[in-house]
Amino acid sequence: MILLGSTGSIGVNTLNIARKFNLKVEVLVAGRNIELLNQQIKEFKPKKVVIDREQDVSLVNHNNVSFGETAILQAIEQSKTSTVVNALVGFLGLKPTLKAIECGKNIALANKESLVVAGKFIDQTKLKPIDSEHFGLWYLLQNKKIDSMLITASGGSFRDYPLEKLQNVSIKEALAHPNWSMGNKITIDSATMTNKMFELMEAAWLFDIRKLDAIIETKSLIHAFINFTDGSTTAHIANASMQLPIAYAILGACDEQILKPVDLVEVANLEFKKIETSRYPIWEIKDEILNNLDLGVVLNAANEVAVAKFLNSEIGFLDVSKITLNAINKFNNVKPTSIEEIFEIDKEVRNYCGA
Amino acid sequence: MILLGSTGSIGVNTLNIARKFNLKVEVLVAGRNIELLNQQIKEFKPKKVVIDREQDVSLVNHNNVSFGETAILQAIEQSKTSTVVNALVGFLGLKPTLKAIECGKNIALANKESLVVAGKFIDQTKLKPIDSEHFGLWYLLQNKKIDSMLITASGGSFRDYPLEKLQNVSIKEALAHPNWSMGNKITIDSATMTNKMFELMEAAWLFDIRKLDAIIETKSLIHAFINFTDGSTTAHIANASMQLPIAYAILGACDEQILKPVDLVEVANLEFKKIETSRYPIWEIKDEILNNLDLGVVLNAANEVAVAKFLNSEIGFLDVSKITLNAINKFNNVKPTSIEEIFEIDKEVRNYCGA
Repeated sequence: MILLGSTGSIGVNTLNIARKFNLKVEVLVAGRNIELLNQQIKEFKPKKVVIDREQDVSLVNHNNVSFGETAILQAIEQSKTSTVVNALVGFLGLKPTLKAIECGKNIALANKESLVVAGKFIDQTKLKPIDSEHFGLWYLLQNKKIDSMLITASGGSFRDYPLEKLQNVSIKEALAHPNWSMGNKITIDSATMTNKMFELMEAAWLFDIRKLDAIIETKSLIHAFINFTDGSTTAHIANASMQLPIAYAILGACDEQILKPVDLVEVANLEFKKIETSRYPIWEIKDEILNNLDLGVVLNAANEVAVAKFLNSEIGFLDVSKITLNAINKFNNVKPTSIEEIFEIDKEVRNYCGA
Repeated sequence: MILLGSTGSIGVNTLNIARKFNLKVEVLVAGRNIELLNQQIKEFKPKKVVIDREQDVSLVNHNNVSFGETAILQAIEQSKTSTVVNALVGFLGLKPTLKAIECGKNIALANKESLVVAGKFIDQTKLKPIDSEHFGLWYLLQNKKIDSMLITASGGSFRDYPLEKLQNVSIKEALAHPNWSMGNKITIDSATMTNKMFELMEAAWLFDIRKLDAIIETKSLIHAFINFTDGSTTAHIANASMQLPIAYAILGACDEQILKPVDLVEVANLEFKKIETSRYPIWEIKDEILNNLDLGVVLNAANEVAVAKFLNSEIGFLDVSKITLNAINKFNNVKPTSIEEIFEIDKEVRNYCGA
């Protein structure tokens, strides 16, 4: 496989699966965590390595190291392997997804933004989502008539935080996710609920359905529900680890034990909550977004700019949603008709948001 | 259809489905609730009616009424309909099940005892279980490798009752089920957890699996779980009404809304508990029973005798389990090799238990 984003949590879990099932890793693509990358190189012996910055090249223990976006796209093009795992964060994951499709590779997709911003232009034939929620939905699909789908949210870092203090939270508090550790960007997206909005948009593309919603399940043990027309609901339950969706996305099917099963007696109780717009203002535009998936590129660009500003201490926490909602309001007429326009709109929205 | 047990809760729900889907009811079989039976006759216009006692015949508003077990078997034999709904309670439901199989009818089976006491001798080809738990398991079955199955129990009338006072509970308290109203026998079986043991034995026969267990889910909204070898668990969730399993058992498939879907935000929380042997002594022999399904006829006979004695104020509540456990201990070597032996063992166990 080619693994894009090898040192993030999805990347590390992907390598756990590679180790377990003896899968070959042809290319490792990582950012700035060179220490971990060097450990991975030692164990998995890739033929090629791509990193983010030129100045780190000399620190990498490998004789075939390149850097930057073009190098990633070249690595995909030149590789012989049939599987690309795309665990890059943000808009920059889109071009590698498009390149992998162009090259006829199978894509295990953990980069949410690819579908969020350009779902319309993405051929899903060879795409398998890596996300507990979408894996859960897929897992539950049977030949019964589906009414709607429901995914769960943890509620993020500020689920139980006093509402009136939200504007002044620190970056450190925002990065303390209650249920697990992920990269900074997605942890903030989880705290604002924008991450869940992304997942609903992905589900809309993946399952061709608009009757979609999310609720908070505080322990993150149930990932997805399907409501059937007969009144039944089914649920997918698993301990919160990405290894299960990764194993299925890479292997196609899997009978071996990947995770320890959930012991419900030990769990003792589960709690469900509504996603309130007072705490998660982005939820105000859920229906608008689901009825107009073209807005994905706007939502994503504004959000990327806003999250970067927050992490750079330029704005308060609630300003993140404000910037995003404002951008959606300003650009609510976009109708991209080509992938090129996606890149143009992305740039325009970023400029508008003061990137 | 022929409906055996039309005035009980399963019977009434079956007629709700018959009304909704305009199904013909050829024969109604009921016990002693003649008032309700007369209403059902007026609405569904059956060709034949069978009741329990000769002295009630003149009270039934129908010109073709018979009574007793033989009349039930005759009605099955003479009927033209292809579907028998067997919602009789207890051992007396077994012969009608056998007769229906003999006549090549489809059987929607709510009588638990048929499989519990004689699963070995029952051809399941035309049998569809009516039980939320087994329906849930069936609903969840997919082509993935199953590790084990788990069904839920409400915990019954004494789930939260002080343990030390259990022996002296009144019959009225025992009949007050926390989640729904059912017949007396099954309500007591629910309070002792014997009902759940029956369901595990049924699941063993239906799904050819022994890795089976049950846990308490206090709201009775989740009915069944399947644990897969990969570590995933799936769940079947529905409001507690028998109409859904009945609709599937009778109609084969169903896309129409039968139940209002569960609103998990409204539910707010779910609680899971272990089935403790201190509260439910019958659970001590769960593994023994699942490893030796031949004991079903012993368990059922002893339990029927014990429950009747309790409801007749002859013994205390905890004596019900004592009588059953004692009978299992005494008769743990039974190995019926024919259906005739089932009836012999049943009689012998009843005598031993002082019926």
